[in-house]
Amino acid sequence: MYVAMNRFRIALGQEETFIEIWKNRETHLDEVPGFKSFQLLQGPTTDEHTLFASHSIWESETAFRNWTTSEAFRKAHANAKPASGVYLGPPQFEGFTAVLSQ
Amino acid sequence: MYVAMNRFRIALGQEETFIEIWKNRETHLDEVPGFKSFQLLQGPTTDEHTLFASHSIWESETAFRNWTTSEAFRKAHANAKPASGVYLGPPQFEGFTAVLSQ
Repeated sequence: MYVAMNRFRIALGQEETFIEIWKNRETHLDEVPGFKSFQLLQGPTTDEHTLFASHSIWESETAFRNWTTSEAFRKAHANAKPASGVYLGPPQFEGFTAVLSQ
Repeated sequence: MYVAMNRFRIALGQEETFIEIWKNRETHLDEVPGFKSFQLLQGPTTDEHTLFASHSIWESETAFRNWTTSEAFRKAHANAKPASGVYLGPPQFEGFTAVLSQ
């Protein structure tokens, strides 16, 4: 199992705008081999921002890597243009491999 | 759905020691209402450390909060003493609520 996360720092008051962007996104993930599930996660709010994470679960890192070079990935990101005033900096990617499961 | 993560910065070369600590842990999570799954995740390695995350999925934040005040939680953490030279600082907790799922 592999977990791919992108961490987003969203300006205070822009949380609903950010969620709307994701609601309206065509991800085409259901077509992708090795894809298991996706969640958009809302994390803690600090004085400066609210942390969000896109969180997708894959059968393996290879399945995720194959997706990032696929036509489905290109389509999912074709309309991804940053909305001004929403993002505090670029997203931070972190990939994780499960070493224990319960 | 709620995701509870604790991020650990582990000294280079101590990765297997850290994984062994978790392998030998009695978590008693299966007894806990609202618990769905647990994974120990290994993330990126930098010049200074390897990132790990304990990653547990819950039906709700309330289920997770109830666990942290339970006897099962106390038992799971009773023998948790930091191994010297393994951890670079304390773990960093982040809790996330799913706002979209696919």
